[in-house]
Amino acid sequence: MQRISSKDNNLIKHLKKLKEKKYRDEYGEYTVEGIKLVKEAFKEKANIKQLIICDGCNSEIIESHLKYEMAKFDFVYVPENIFKMISNVDNPQGVLAVIGKNTIDTANKDNISLTNDIILALDDIQDPGNLGTILRTADSVGLKQILISKGTADPYNPKVVRSTMGAIFRINIIECDNLKEILEYLKEKNYKIMCTSLEAKKTIYQTNYNKKVIVIGNEANGVSKDIQKMADEKVIIPMLGKTESLNASVATGVILYEYVRQKLI
Amino acid sequence: MQRISSKDNNLIKHLKKLKEKKYRDEYGEYTVEGIKLVKEAFKEKANIKQLIICDGCNSEIIESHLKYEMAKFDFVYVPENIFKMISNVDNPQGVLAVIGKNTIDTANKDNISLTNDIILALDDIQDPGNLGTILRTADSVGLKQILISKGTADPYNPKVVRSTMGAIFRINIIECDNLKEILEYLKEKNYKIMCTSLEAKKTIYQTNYNKKVIVIGNEANGVSKDIQKMADEKVIIPMLGKTESLNASVATGVILYEYVRQKLI
Repeated sequence: MQRISSKDNNLIKHLKKLKEKKYRDEYGEYTVEGIKLVKEAFKEKANIKQLIICDGCNSEIIESHLKYEMAKFDFVYVPENIFKMISNVDNPQGVLAVIGKNTIDTANKDNISLTNDIILALDDIQDPGNLGTILRTADSVGLKQILISKGTADPYNPKVVRSTMGAIFRINIIECDNLKEILEYLKEKNYKIMCTSLEAKKTIYQTNYNKKVIVIGNEANGVSKDIQKMADEKVIIPMLGKTESLNASVATGVILYEYVRQKLI
Repeated sequence: MQRISSKDNNLIKHLKKLKEKKYRDEYGEYTVEGIKLVKEAFKEKANIKQLIICDGCNSEIIESHLKYEMAKFDFVYVPENIFKMISNVDNPQGVLAVIGKNTIDTANKDNISLTNDIILALDDIQDPGNLGTILRTADSVGLKQILISKGTADPYNPKVVRSTMGAIFRINIIECDNLKEILEYLKEKNYKIMCTSLEAKKTIYQTNYNKKVIVIGNEANGVSKDIQKMADEKVIIPMLGKTESLNASVATGVILYEYVRQKLI
């Protein structure tokens, strides 16, 4: 255990930098906060690099909940004013961990696992809450990887991390510089590319989910034209009311749980 | 058309008050912002009481999009500094409408429509984004009403209104002082109360959706014990991965679209 009380300390400076995407990219690290997420990071054997505890905030509660974790990890105590500088929330619980990213480089396509029956691909999902919720949902149906386009929100943004409820530690996030190219590669590997379209006749209930890549489009514009063009199958979520579209994370949930239903019957 | 340039004008004072729930309750009014939502309010014949345009913000764009609406409604121009005082967003588009609420009083239970095959009831949904997304999803499957418990977030909170994407104008929101009592009344009317439970054996795919009240529970605690006790049926969304629960709006979507699937086959 060590104690840091100067805001000019190098570790504190480093932690402040991790609030910005460019430094999360540069260092390959991100932060998680709160007892629940930090416990989950330990449980899932995430690549934990630092454990920071706010001295005084809720130390007793934190220490009782993280007894085992704190015993086996060389954590750092910082005073409340410094903790607030590194925290990403208005009312921090007082515990933060620095984690090494689990992003996979697609320069080597062999990193994409081809064993799963479906692969989920996100084409420019913008809203951090949606992205986090999609990761959580993907994890809930047992997916181990997810493809995300370059224009998708940063999955290591603190808001995304919070919404994943721990799924971020379990899913390999494959950032694709060129999603279309990766989808072409997957077509060669006998996957079919499926995307939703308001013009489709076939519903999500009338298709099967074997060796499919399900592409989820941007909140405002849907799946990009290039990818629509190369899709093997277009499907629609049939709507009975006046609303014409669903929230992106709800649409993803509806499709993934149709996959679950078909798997169970 | 009139022009107001004093922040001490009574209308401006009134509009500022509508940012707070207590005044939205007192006056039975709420505000919507942005070209898309305001157009939708007109289209859906919402009870529009005021139309406020920011003079100078994006007047040309607004006027071209809302030509017909502005021609038939006695709108008010205000300068940018005043518009920012009444707006609920950081970068307002420059158009805001005051709408009369479409909430139904459950003191008179006859206001609840008993003709639908399912009724959706929300038991203390806390997150405004979730509530708005649930209203949008409910509208997408054709539901005309929704029951909400007293502890549910305010459906007329600007963040909720935005997330509904216009569904707020189409759904009757029935605020229940005592949701349990209303559910008991619905049981007498031959509805079955259904809620999700992690302990349930039966999946959401193994039940039918005729005359069911689907109760969606609070994000952290699920459906309250009292209501769990009176439920006729408990079901589970079967999960194949490690995540134990879904986001409340995703769970609602998954259940409502299983209802749609059964309806279509």
